[in-house]
Formats: sequence, structure tokens, C-alpha cells
Amino acid sequence: MSDECTVVIKGWELMSYYSDSSNMCWFMLPELRDEIERLHHLVGNAVTKDKYIVVGNGSSQLFQAALFAVSPSDVSDHPINVVVTAPYYSEYKNAINVLHSRMFRWAGDATLYDENKPYIEVVTSPNNPDGTLRVPMVNSLAEGKLIHDLAYYWPQYTPINYEAGHDIMLFTFSKCTGHAGSRIGWAIVKDIAVAKKMATFVQSSTMGVSKESQTRAAKIIAVICDGYQNFKSNESELFFEYSKRLMRERWEKFRGAIEQSMVFNVTKYPRAHCNFTNEISETYPSFAWLKCEEGIENSHHCLRKLNICGREGERFGVDSKYVRISMLGIDDEFNEMVKRLSNAKKE
Amino acid sequence: MSDECTVVIKGWELMSYYSDSSNMCWFMLPELRDEIERLHHLVGNAVTKDKYIVVGNGSSQLFQAALFAVSPSDVSDHPINVVVTAPYYSEYKNAINVLHSRMFRWAGDATLYDENKPYIEVVTSPNNPDGTLRVPMVNSLAEGKLIHDLAYYWPQYTPINYEAGHDIMLFTFSKCTGHAGSRIGWAIVKDIAVAKKMATFVQSSTMGVSKESQTRAAKIIAVICDGYQNFKSNESELFFEYSKRLMRERWEKFRGAIEQSMVFNVTKYPRAHCNFTNEISETYPSFAWLKCEEGIENSHHCLRKLNICGREGERFGVDSKYVRISMLGIDDEFNEMVKRLSNAKKE
Repeated sequence: MSDECTVVIKGWELMSYYSDSSNMCWFMLPELRDEIERLHHLVGNAVTKDKYIVVGNGSSQLFQAALFAVSPSDVSDHPINVVVTAPYYSEYKNAINVLHSRMFRWAGDATLYDENKPYIEVVTSPNNPDGTLRVPMVNSLAEGKLIHDLAYYWPQYTPINYEAGHDIMLFTFSKCTGHAGSRIGWAIVKDIAVAKKMATFVQSSTMGVSKESQTRAAKIIAVICDGYQNFKSNESELFFEYSKRLMRERWEKFRGAIEQSMVFNVTKYPRAHCNFTNEISETYPSFAWLKCEEGIENSHHCLRKLNICGREGERFGVDSKYVRISMLGIDDEFNEMVKRLSNAKKE
Repeated sequence: MSDECTVVIKGWELMSYYSDSSNMCWFMLPELRDEIERLHHLVGNAVTKDKYIVVGNGSSQLFQAALFAVSPSDVSDHPINVVVTAPYYSEYKNAINVLHSRMFRWAGDATLYDENKPYIEVVTSPNNPDGTLRVPMVNSLAEGKLIHDLAYYWPQYTPINYEAGHDIMLFTFSKCTGHAGSRIGWAIVKDIAVAKKMATFVQSSTMGVSKESQTRAAKIIAVICDGYQNFKSNESELFFEYSKRLMRERWEKFRGAIEQSMVFNVTKYPRAHCNFTNEISETYPSFAWLKCEEGIENSHHCLRKLNICGREGERFGVDSKYVRISMLGIDDEFNEMVKRLSNAKKE
């Protein structure tokens, strides 16, 4: 759909800091907000009615913004603990630690949290790295705030089995369509005071979000929605059906190679009904989370010997038996990876 | 130059996080780096040879990144003091305070700094809000690190009287060409360790910088440089000559109105030789920094009565006799502002 998705930006366009001075998120293009709402309404993965949308430079920035917004406003010498169930997305820790903030601190695995103090729990569902569906796991009497990172809650990766309506939900264009280079994320927020604080964070850190990226994201999301709503496309060209088919084909090839390899195991996912595609289907995560067989200690080393790059389990808060690899490389790379994996032998 | 500056981006382009994995700033498009170097070489306002360039989401993000990079790496309970000579750009304080970092803290006016402790001094030259040229002002025996914010060091605003070669220099596309909506800033950094830390900050906060904005900034800067280097344009169409003429015309109108008003004074700037245009000329800042006449206490209130929006002196660390107004509105707004100012009378 290269031509339909093409954007043309003239020299004098999109020059201002401002997009919509009537919105508390004054740097968000109204057409992007409209297309985000339209997309969620189409897919049914998140409630936007009576919620506030904040755009950010990727969901990375909105993650920091959300921590800022829900941390206690009387900043003390005791920053609030931030926890995530392991294995957790490796970058959360960096995004927190880089700031050395007195507002919040990284406190590791949510399932091990046993302090009787207020906390923030990040719920990543489907989870990066392992593709599982997640719910809050902290078992504490203390007050907890939740941030739901729903980056992968799209039909190509997982059955859409409920319309999420959590207090703070993070999404990103990067995982929805694959346009990681655009750095467009959005938060859907219940409480206007929290949404305003998040917008303030984005303002103070980067004075808004690239208008070029916003206009392009709006255009591409519109093309996706138009495909469904104008019945112009046949089903094989509809974005989520097309993407899901590619993911399924890749996972089938990949599981075949893993079975041959005798070295790795990969998670089995339950089949579930998808409200969007109206079919029962599997989960096809954007990453494969591999565990090596008994008698092997380090999955990352095994991959290295095969000349495959992965990210080691320790970075996700678990041990070296685990490793994460991407399922989203270009075709040639993916096929080569599968070939190498299928040749893996126990030594 | 609308057509020459037009960018066309197809649906499948610029999708990756990566731009140049051989560069420590792996998310920077090589063509943007090349055009930035070419522009500084053309204008002669900053040395790029043997320096490292880091791109950011506006210079706002690079300001935070620079503080992060030069703060002591053994984070203690005593954050390093950050000072700027008043009147200082109002957003520095917000960019620091929003993070509540244990690494650095806002410590106010550099000229009042009397602690015998390490510090970071930000030198904004030409200065926002008052357009003056600045040098470091802290008088302390303690070790100081410098960050030079040279956002306005371009020929349309001020004579280019030396080629800056400071340790950390911040620039922004926003002030160079007026494309504030693109959120493209860059730092020119002497020490590779500092540059790497800055790139790490941008990575952890926003996982890079919009590729759409980077490609557009590269294109527009190339058009500006081509104008000079291919001798295709006559002088009235060369970017900096054209922009400087507009600034001069606005300042002449504006000074005329201020003289009529009997309410405000505006700074007089010295004339100086510009190495770029090779002529002696005045400074034409993007803001006017107004002080009210004797007997009037609050410039901001005076402006309000005229239905003119300004930013009050207190936000820049000085008193309410001062107010900042923008010289860069669209023509109709600017002309209306001048008309209202010329009607200002003492009550």
C-alpha cells in the first residue's frame, strides 16, 4: 500500500510548536487523535470514550511520563517502587535508572514485591519478551498504581479477547504497523489530571512530538481503517488479516525449525477467540522466547555459535537459560535465521 | 522555496529504529549529519571537525541529555548545581525540575553563585530572552562544566563574529529555519564519552528521534546550502540574507512603535562585523525584551491591557518590569502587535 500511504510535506507546512491549543495535549495533531480513536473503535482493543489521549515520542517517553504522573507529588527521599513481573521488557529498567529520579525507582520483579509501601506496577500484555497475557501480580496491602503497556495488543499478534479500559494504557505506532522509526506512541488515560501531567512531562522534555511523524501516522492509520470501512479491499489486503497471516506463516516455519534443533524449547500459547477476526486462533508474538533444553546453561551462547543475535535472559530479569529473538526481521534474514536454528545440535 | 523543500515519504520507508549502526548515535540519519556539518561549514558559526554530533528531539531533550552526561557519575545525595545568568530562558528550570533528579538541580542565577562546589553553567548566546551575547559568568574556585546553548547563533539574528568550538554546543532546527514542529535539535560535542552518554540518554528516553523529521530537516538544510554553493539563487533569495532582511524590517517597525509608545524601552544592541555576510550590522533577536518606563511596575499587565501576549520577567529570573514578546509571529499578527504597541500611553 506504498502509494496510498505516501505523505507529501511542503517546505512551509507543520512549522509551529502548536497543533491544537484547545486541547490539554496542545502538541497533538487533531487528525492523529481522530485516527487513533477510529482505529481502537475498529479493532475493539481499547476504550477511548470519555478518556484522554496524550501523544509522545514513542511509548518509551510515555512510560516515563506515566511514572512521573502517578508518583506522589510530594517528592521525598523515598522514591516510589516500580515493579514488573519477570521476564520483563529490558528497557523499563534503563528508562527509570537513566533519570536517577527522586520520584520513582526500579524495584524489580512484581511477584517478589513484599514491601508494605505504595508502588507502581507495570502490566505488559501481551508481554515482551514472552508473549503471554498478563494481569497485576503484586500481593501487597499497600496502595498500588497500574500502568498497562498494551504495545502488542493488536490482532496480528494475539486474539483480541476484551476491550481494555484500564486507567493508563500505552500503545505505539511502532508495534501497531511496524513504523518504529516514527517514534509515535500514545497513552489513553482515564483521569484528566494524570493526562495533563503526562502532557507536561512531554512538553518539558521535548517540547512536543514531531509533526511530520504525527501527520504520517495519521495518514497510515487512516488507510488501514479505510480498508475495513469502505470495503475497498479484499480480505487478503486488509491490514490486520494480512499481517496476521505473515505472523502465522513465520511461526509455523519457526516452530518446525525449533523442533528439529534439539536445543531449544519455545512457549506454547493457548488458542482463544478473537473478537476482531471472529475466529479461534493462536498467539503470534513479535518475539520468540527460547529456553534451552536440559543440560545446556546458556541460550545466548548457543545462538552466538549459530551466528544469531538475541538478547540474553538476564536482561529480562531471569536466567541465562532464556533468550529473546525477533520474529520481525526482513524475509531474507528471517529465513536465514530459521535455517541456522534448524541446524542447531546438542554438542 | 516550498517545492524545492518538499519531502515525499512512501509507506514502507523509514520504518526501522536504526539509521546508522556504525555511529555511536545509531538513530541519526547519515544525511542529516552530513547536512548539519555542511551548514556549519557554510555559515562558520561552529566547528564540527573532530567533533561528535548527537541528534535529539529538539534541543530541549539535548539540554537534559547534556546535564545527564556531565553530572558526576557517582550519584550522591548532593546533586550538582545548574546555573544560568538571569534573565535566563524560562524552560531550563522546568526541564530540570520535572525530572527531580538526584544528579543535578536548578540553582538559579549564575552571577549570584557563591558555593564552593562543582557546578554546571549554561551559556545561552545570543541569549533568550534578551538577545545579548554571553560568556561564562560564575566566579568560583570550584570545578565548573559548561553547556553552550547556541540556538540563536545564526546570521539572521546576530552577526557571526567567531567560529564557536566549545565542549558542548546545542543547536536547533527550530531556530535555524523556523521549523519548530519538527523537534530536531543537535549537539556538537568534543568528548566522545560525553557524546555517547548523551546518545544513551536519548535512547533511554525516546528510543531515538523521528526519521520523518530527520529526513525533512536534511532536505531543507540541503536546499539552503545548495542556494549558496550552486550560485543558483540571487542574493535576495539566499536563505540567511532573506531572513535577515525580514528581521531587520520587523525590528525597524518595532523600534518605531516603541519610541511612540512612551511606555516601554527596548535593549539597544551594538553593531558588529558578521564574518558570514561580510558586513557590519545590528542584532535582530527573535524576541524583544521590553522594560517599562519609570513609574510603571508591571510590563506584562501593560501588554495585557493592549491585548498583547508576552511572557513575564519573573519567569526569566528578573522582576516584573520586564516582559518578553515574540518577533516571529505571522505578518498579520506582527503588524497588529506593532499597531497596538504604538498606541500604548502612560495612564
